[in-house]
Amino acid sequence: MADVSDTRRAASSSAISAAAEQSVAALDRTTVRLERVCAAREVTGEVGRRQFLHAGPPIDIGDVPGPMRGALIGGLLFEGEARDVAEAEAIIDSGELTLLPCHDAGALGAMAGVITPGMPVVVARSSVGHLTFSPLNEGIGGAVRYGSYDGDTLARLKWMASDMAPVLDDAIGASEPIELVDLVADGLRRGDECHNRLIATTAILITRLAPALIGAARNREAAAKVAKMMGDNGHFSLPFAISMAKALTLAAADIADSPIVTTMSGNGREFGIRVSGLGDRWFLAPSPIGEPKLIAGARLEDVTPTMGDSMISETAGFGAFAMSAAPAIMSFVGGTVEQARGMVEQMRGICAGTSSRFLLPAEEHRGTPIGIDVHAVRRSGVAPIINNGLCHRLQGRGRIGAGITRIPVEPFVAASDALLAAGMVR
Amino acid sequence: MADVSDTRRAASSSAISAAAEQSVAALDRTTVRLERVCAAREVTGEVGRRQFLHAGPPIDIGDVPGPMRGALIGGLLFEGEARDVAEAEAIIDSGELTLLPCHDAGALGAMAGVITPGMPVVVARSSVGHLTFSPLNEGIGGAVRYGSYDGDTLARLKWMASDMAPVLDDAIGASEPIELVDLVADGLRRGDECHNRLIATTAILITRLAPALIGAARNREAAAKVAKMMGDNGHFSLPFAISMAKALTLAAADIADSPIVTTMSGNGREFGIRVSGLGDRWFLAPSPIGEPKLIAGARLEDVTPTMGDSMISETAGFGAFAMSAAPAIMSFVGGTVEQARGMVEQMRGICAGTSSRFLLPAEEHRGTPIGIDVHAVRRSGVAPIINNGLCHRLQGRGRIGAGITRIPVEPFVAASDALLAAGMVR
Repeated sequence: MADVSDTRRAASSSAISAAAEQSVAALDRTTVRLERVCAAREVTGEVGRRQFLHAGPPIDIGDVPGPMRGALIGGLLFEGEARDVAEAEAIIDSGELTLLPCHDAGALGAMAGVITPGMPVVVARSSVGHLTFSPLNEGIGGAVRYGSYDGDTLARLKWMASDMAPVLDDAIGASEPIELVDLVADGLRRGDECHNRLIATTAILITRLAPALIGAARNREAAAKVAKMMGDNGHFSLPFAISMAKALTLAAADIADSPIVTTMSGNGREFGIRVSGLGDRWFLAPSPIGEPKLIAGARLEDVTPTMGDSMISETAGFGAFAMSAAPAIMSFVGGTVEQARGMVEQMRGICAGTSSRFLLPAEEHRGTPIGIDVHAVRRSGVAPIINNGLCHRLQGRGRIGAGITRIPVEPFVAASDALLAAGMVR
Repeated sequence: MADVSDTRRAASSSAISAAAEQSVAALDRTTVRLERVCAAREVTGEVGRRQFLHAGPPIDIGDVPGPMRGALIGGLLFEGEARDVAEAEAIIDSGELTLLPCHDAGALGAMAGVITPGMPVVVARSSVGHLTFSPLNEGIGGAVRYGSYDGDTLARLKWMASDMAPVLDDAIGASEPIELVDLVADGLRRGDECHNRLIATTAILITRLAPALIGAARNREAAAKVAKMMGDNGHFSLPFAISMAKALTLAAADIADSPIVTTMSGNGREFGIRVSGLGDRWFLAPSPIGEPKLIAGARLEDVTPTMGDSMISETAGFGAFAMSAAPAIMSFVGGTVEQARGMVEQMRGICAGTSSRFLLPAEEHRGTPIGIDVHAVRRSGVAPIINNGLCHRLQGRGRIGAGITRIPVEPFVAASDALLAAGMVR
């Protein structure tokens, strides 16, 4: 009997477990539709006057890095909870503000990821019923997500809430349904990897919404400005892509024994992952900086360590996991086309599946690797990579660089151990 | 003295001639701006009630292939010169209709390339003053350029002339100037090669025009329909791209001694080229069919041999000459990504220059080959390739396939001989 058991164990350890397969199937088959654009408070009860969401794993408000503190100040000013910076800082330092990870509310925040009740968010709904959301992208430079709270930044965000959101929501309502997996799949065919390069994907979104924006907009002036801002912001479609990715990972989550990663996320201090078979438990490491390509004049010591929820894209099988789709971005992040192919190939070694929807034209339409398996990471010693932007440590300075960042291997090993310790791996 | 002369001759034959360099510089430096959309008659005196333009080198009206005859019938019906097909055919057979190559009027016609006075055309103007134009793209399937003249096809074309053209013209006038070299250069970064795949390029065009379409359109219903039609037609930006290409090749033309090809074009019977140092003289060969990838159920004997002016894109350095930019199209035309790179590499061997503007992300942003040198074609025996669509031989059947087609080498050899015979090569 022992022999049979050993044989079974060997067979099991050499094959992808049924649980992993179930997570991979969820990642590969769930569809996600663009639902609406509205204020965050309309889609979740997890935000309030004194409860904001933030990027990454949980963090004490006293520990938040500069840009996240700036974003909290910006959020309080935006909401009218504080009349000036001093009042906002007093609220923050009083301890009366509760912070909750975006991921615990079905949300995604790029960079600081602070979401307040009135912030305009993109909402997606999956075929298995999950609702996810992410703030509209304000553009590069001064932006609340980078910790800015100057007058121009806040005025733009207020306009986005008051004018842009209803214009977009009307256009979405008046358009053919937009399937967000298809949006990203099309983007991959057009030279985007859809985490750090989304310029063609954004153009697809404009193309899909343009007839309704032209024909049905109640406020033509605002609608024209919306189209202009979308066209000028190559990252505009990021919240659309990552809301979709979150919905896929939610479908893959909470499957007993599954070693598939469902969250990767940074708060600027710590980087955390969650694993399907381990529920809401975070596995943490110090947030990495990697070897980013910085903007001219920037110094490595000015970089905020990896922060944001947007690496949900890699968790769902695009971004760096689709790097060979986007040769044009390689020089931007400091690399070659050959390296891009090598990155995808390496990620295949730690993933349990291959996407049937996110296809890589440069690899003869082979699918991207999907379903990061913590056991495979432990066995190979290869940790996932992400293709992310990096933020200046000071408020108001915005994007300081971009690059391919290797996640520390420790959280994956710890999660693998936890699954084994729980006797959950057969 | 003879020795010195020989040395000079050797040096000259091993280097790119000054004349070729001048043509290449013109191809590489001329800028081209989108000027307007209007009826053909507004931009040329070369069309009239009994004078139409057509694709390719000159052809007797009795010799035109089926789709071109269909397009002439469609043109006569569209113009109201004939009340029915019988009347149109009577006009054609009476011999009173004069046909002129598009290329002799600064025009480009995709497929049959028939241009009549009222047809809506895209107009471009170059930095050296050339005006070029090409008909708005009607879409794939039933279209006059494929020889269709059914009621639906003609009704759409009439709507394009009456409603779409003014909507687009207004939007162009109300938008920031659109530089068409930049449009194609951006398209190459987004997975298009801009001859047979232009879906991302079309989305760029929509993105650029959307604010004006939304904010300024006098006829909102028509403008919304225009945006919808543009978004549904991945080839919509083709006439924008090839009008630009024609303007580049006009700048490169008529340079004494220059062996650079300025026109490649087919009329469905003959394929012709023109060379910068040889003025308006055509060098001809039978139109090739190549080995196209046909649509399901189609037969090779149903294919009209290469027809159209759109291979001006290869003549100007994109299309098949940028094939590695568009991995997603390779399976569509029946090939692999490796083959795409090989094609571009092979074309480098017969071109006198490298574009500083049409860059290939998959080749670390190396420029495309530009300036086909007829001497290099003769020396190497390698003829240019084009990435073109192919048309059913019967009217009303539309696109039957697509593929990489090798142009016959003979016209290039003959042109090389003509340059040598004229003692024009030093």
